[in-house]
Amino acid sequence: MIQFDIPNPDGQLNADIWQKINHKTKPVGALGMLENIAAQICRIQQTLSPRLLAPNIIVFAADHGIANEGVSQYPPEVTRQMVLNFRAGGAAINVFCRQNGIALTIVDAGVKGGFDDWKDTVFPGTAFVSQSIAPGTKNFAHEPAMSLDECETAVKKGAETMRKVSQTGCNVAGFGEMGIGNTSSAAMLMHKFTGIALHDCVGKGTGLDESGLARKLGVLQKAAEKHPSAQTPMEILATFGGFEIVQICGAMLQAAQNRMVVLVDGFIATAALLAACKFYPQVLDYCIFCHQSDENGHRRMLEFLQVRPVLNLNMRLGEGTGCALAYPIIQASVNFMNNMASFESAGVSR
Amino acid sequence: MIQFDIPNPDGQLNADIWQKINHKTKPVGALGMLENIAAQICRIQQTLSPRLLAPNIIVFAADHGIANEGVSQYPPEVTRQMVLNFRAGGAAINVFCRQNGIALTIVDAGVKGGFDDWKDTVFPGTAFVSQSIAPGTKNFAHEPAMSLDECETAVKKGAETMRKVSQTGCNVAGFGEMGIGNTSSAAMLMHKFTGIALHDCVGKGTGLDESGLARKLGVLQKAAEKHPSAQTPMEILATFGGFEIVQICGAMLQAAQNRMVVLVDGFIATAALLAACKFYPQVLDYCIFCHQSDENGHRRMLEFLQVRPVLNLNMRLGEGTGCALAYPIIQASVNFMNNMASFESAGVSR
Repeated sequence: MIQFDIPNPDGQLNADIWQKINHKTKPVGALGMLENIAAQICRIQQTLSPRLLAPNIIVFAADHGIANEGVSQYPPEVTRQMVLNFRAGGAAINVFCRQNGIALTIVDAGVKGGFDDWKDTVFPGTAFVSQSIAPGTKNFAHEPAMSLDECETAVKKGAETMRKVSQTGCNVAGFGEMGIGNTSSAAMLMHKFTGIALHDCVGKGTGLDESGLARKLGVLQKAAEKHPSAQTPMEILATFGGFEIVQICGAMLQAAQNRMVVLVDGFIATAALLAACKFYPQVLDYCIFCHQSDENGHRRMLEFLQVRPVLNLNMRLGEGTGCALAYPIIQASVNFMNNMASFESAGVSR
Repeated sequence: MIQFDIPNPDGQLNADIWQKINHKTKPVGALGMLENIAAQICRIQQTLSPRLLAPNIIVFAADHGIANEGVSQYPPEVTRQMVLNFRAGGAAINVFCRQNGIALTIVDAGVKGGFDDWKDTVFPGTAFVSQSIAPGTKNFAHEPAMSLDECETAVKKGAETMRKVSQTGCNVAGFGEMGIGNTSSAAMLMHKFTGIALHDCVGKGTGLDESGLARKLGVLQKAAEKHPSAQTPMEILATFGGFEIVQICGAMLQAAQNRMVVLVDGFIATAALLAACKFYPQVLDYCIFCHQSDENGHRRMLEFLQVRPVLNLNMRLGEGTGCALAYPIIQASVNFMNNMASFESAGVSR
């Protein structure tokens, strides 16, 4: 496995950080979560004057063999169609990134059909990276989704993309995904990495009805029994993961190594983080949880990690949309830290 | 009482609104609350292509006679000091408005000491309006906070400010407040307008400890028994209100009359809305609830109104900060409605 060197953010600054926060012209604690976010970013950046620079949301897309089992509301070709929509600037994540001044990077991590034949203009502000591991994973109802080699390569490719993005001056990155069938993959990873009963990990995805949900649960229950030899984190990730999920895992680890702020989106992105935590638990110190998805398992995932999301807007879309929508609030945390007056400077009585 | 002419937003467009939302390239319902907000703004503006124009947050400030009873953590002079901080651009609301492109209007609705002697430059983008009813209310522990005449004047002055702001082209306004002692006033209004037990309406405000909270509750319990003749909404508002609260009530009613989007902040602003609803219940159709405050009574206020807030960041600051922080999400609702591709335009399978 590729090695990462992820420092534990030094807590020595804590007293100075809270001294600065508590001298701002507001009652102690009155900015709630914004104060905790500001303090966390100060620790990550080891400064009392944090900055968010060149924010970037990286959307990894890939297809899933398990989609052949009828576990999704949408046909597999939608993965590729939605990537074309990202490239053309028409999806929700494009709209939200444009609004909030966030650069968007789309990664083909393993989309069936690829994009070689597609020559149209990429929407301004959107970058496209082609690093497909294979045209979709194998169907883990029958065989492991990918080989251990492919899994390692995917971790490396994700880290590589992160290094390239950080060379643009970016110090805050969000991670999104697109992949028909990937709530099935994420549910399996959640089950294996947390020990939570599969029933509580499986949800309606893009909108299954009750009978569709029952079918999905049945497929995944059989799959869970199918691979008793998958034991190590890497084996679990290779057996049940997706190329977009594994690349996200690598990208998150690289982001933490680079001391970047890591914006975690919904169910799939958090499943990738569960894997990353199995390798390097300290990655959590770099993470801000942007949105609690309406997908059934996500609340329990966040409880398992003992973290609280910034937003809870009942969304269940993926694409990194939760990151894009939470970004202005994270920006506000940094801005109050730098730009609010203190009691002393404003002449306000305490 | 000044009359308002507030239309009920026509629901006839509903089918077309949801047809448009459901054709966007996302699973049905996947944008959660953003879809409901978009639909609401479409109804308010009677269009399928809503626009948010010249957003403005109006912060009304005033002093409270009840502050003499030791119900706040901070001395009364902090109201005036914080208004100077707003004018100088150093408070949280200044920082968040600047970040999100929101104009800020500060209103002296009745601050002790006034601002005639204060000649310094107003921070760019911040307007200041002087329409003090009196230098603070009377102490409602002993006598009504204001006369019925003063209360009517305050409603009118609030409405006037709103008309002026809307002449800047503004069609979306948030309402903030500053006033040491005003959680006591708001708790009394909540108790009287909702029938909820006073104990559940009273909270720690800017940060009372347990004994301070007990003292505050005692003061307010006596005050509640002191004024049995206050029965009509206007009498209740005059007896227990504050000049900033009553002006906000008038401003909200005027905003609804102008078919504007009304952004409701925390505990105090929602108390003003409770009064507005007593006069014109249809004002609620124009309201977006931006943030659930950590102040004890606010969750119950929102439950009473059967509404759900956009944010819950554990803040308890007032100043309209919840409105300023929720604004980008409201903007995102409008943006996805206007700028996202449809399944048909993007060639995505359903």
